[in-house]
Amino acid sequence: MATLTVPGTSTFRDAQIDMAHGAGGKASRRLVEGLIVPHLMADAVGPLNDAAYLSMGDAGLALTTDSFVVRPLRFPGGSIGDLAVNGTVNDLAVAGAAPLALLCSLIVEAGTPTEILRAEVAAMGAAARRAGVRIVGGDTKVVEHGKADGLYITTTGIGRRDSRATLSAGSVRPGDRILVTGCIGDHGITVLLARGDIDLAASLKSDTRSVYPFANALIEAVGSSLRWMRDPTRGGLATTLNELARDCELGITLEEEAVPVRDEVRGACELLGLDPLHIANEGQLVAIVSADATEEALAALRRVPGGESAAIVGRVDASPPRTVVAVASYGGTRVVDMLVGDPLPRIC
Amino acid sequence: MATLTVPGTSTFRDAQIDMAHGAGGKASRRLVEGLIVPHLMADAVGPLNDAAYLSMGDAGLALTTDSFVVRPLRFPGGSIGDLAVNGTVNDLAVAGAAPLALLCSLIVEAGTPTEILRAEVAAMGAAARRAGVRIVGGDTKVVEHGKADGLYITTTGIGRRDSRATLSAGSVRPGDRILVTGCIGDHGITVLLARGDIDLAASLKSDTRSVYPFANALIEAVGSSLRWMRDPTRGGLATTLNELARDCELGITLEEEAVPVRDEVRGACELLGLDPLHIANEGQLVAIVSADATEEALAALRRVPGGESAAIVGRVDASPPRTVVAVASYGGTRVVDMLVGDPLPRIC
Repeated sequence: MATLTVPGTSTFRDAQIDMAHGAGGKASRRLVEGLIVPHLMADAVGPLNDAAYLSMGDAGLALTTDSFVVRPLRFPGGSIGDLAVNGTVNDLAVAGAAPLALLCSLIVEAGTPTEILRAEVAAMGAAARRAGVRIVGGDTKVVEHGKADGLYITTTGIGRRDSRATLSAGSVRPGDRILVTGCIGDHGITVLLARGDIDLAASLKSDTRSVYPFANALIEAVGSSLRWMRDPTRGGLATTLNELARDCELGITLEEEAVPVRDEVRGACELLGLDPLHIANEGQLVAIVSADATEEALAALRRVPGGESAAIVGRVDASPPRTVVAVASYGGTRVVDMLVGDPLPRIC
Repeated sequence: MATLTVPGTSTFRDAQIDMAHGAGGKASRRLVEGLIVPHLMADAVGPLNDAAYLSMGDAGLALTTDSFVVRPLRFPGGSIGDLAVNGTVNDLAVAGAAPLALLCSLIVEAGTPTEILRAEVAAMGAAARRAGVRIVGGDTKVVEHGKADGLYITTTGIGRRDSRATLSAGSVRPGDRILVTGCIGDHGITVLLARGDIDLAASLKSDTRSVYPFANALIEAVGSSLRWMRDPTRGGLATTLNELARDCELGITLEEEAVPVRDEVRGACELLGLDPLHIANEGQLVAIVSADATEEALAALRRVPGGESAAIVGRVDASPPRTVVAVASYGGTRVVDMLVGDPLPRIC
């Protein structure tokens, strides 16, 4: 689900919809804020997050929805079915909610072999069991051959808010630290290579997984010292942190060498002229934690299986406001912008 | 959301997915029951309905999701945006729930003019306001030109269960009466004609609307004498009643002449060799009510604006079990089957 801010701050003037509008970067933000939110959510106020909150009786609910259109359907480490479950589980997790139930809706292209559909439905079932969430309902539509690309999946998640989590961009303070749960860029580069358009071999696989164990470990370990969480998917860590910088009106300083990136991802990015900070992840969480709770939070992340390479990658500063800066060990700095354009279409 | 029954009762053996699998009739049912439910919802028991129920604290929730792929995007009386809101609101309404909030996810084909997207987003916003439901979140994905058909919309609804409603196929008894809220077949025939493939003019428009006012009026008027409700969309009234007959293991007798059908719909169906009972509706409700509450229920439906042509169209009988029979005034009877094949693809 898209992160977005107060509606009415911009108007969408592009004549048609292009791939960049779906890439999760600047163009996506303009589309959502300038066209979609003003019509659909006229009464929205304040920053909207990866999930919406709703109170029903004594229950605090979190709700999120996402469509998955990844190409190809299967890639090393996962498939569209895994992404559709984990991606929605993760949007709930970073909203401070325990995932309870999913609904899923399939749009199938006529002519798709049954075995392909069966494999993805099985992948969804297995991912849901791994994530401890029930799939409680769904829908199936079929469109003519040539009117889809095999299979698109939309999943909606419902979760129960954890009352110990008090997450908001507004609670982020100068001096807070930035943590990530592991290596970034694995998913985006894996999918790019799986398309076979680029003559490059690497033993990479997608990081698709539920990040709920990490989110839960942080809430248990540091409680209200946890300020904010997000899963850096489309647009990568750079876009996610730029959104935070904008929403909290503070500066973000990344220690470039502290960000865990596999050699294969770094190498592919150098060859392709991409920045690993812009590459999508499907199983990582970025968290902002108050300075005094940082070591405790890091230890908690590293205790979760799969969290061994969690790292502290930067801090929040008072200035420059609304800006992300990366600092290299030799002292050089660069401004890290949101993703512009769409170098990697249909990554999730 | 698909109506389906206990998983494991059939296995799906078709080699590929065809348009008929999305038509809401027999093939859809085989796909859902034979392939999707066994993987996704392994712990499902008993008949599943248009919405899933979930208890959270003291709140009883209903959840439903549907993808909309109608072609063309706009037609007399409505558009995909209207359907996407009303269709999901209606699935909650017939589940005995008051619609509270929607989430919507858009899949947009690259190259789609912004004005088309803007019109549909505006239609969704307006339909949500008319239905008294908030849109609280969403997602947008873009796929390449030629990988969709302008716009697909998936909406998910969350509602609060009305504790006065005790709806289930299992509570239906011989002697119960069948009511519908108005003329059937308008939506399907309107969309068919809007495609321009058939040289036939008619002043028809889609019946797309929220049926929540009807559902609520029935619950208020007759309470637990209301046994079961459904909105007869894909597959039409015939498919919906066949699903009920199967789930309650009783017989359904329709009085053919009592079913309200406009002359234009009847004429188009005769020309095209279609049965109005198989044509999709997007703003009608079919209800089963105990015999003693029938007149009260009918009066309640007719008091709702737009319910003036509500009618009693048949009754539930002990036999023949699991069968829908239509009786004509001259005494002839015919068995009315579920929709087979897909005469009207992408109707919602």
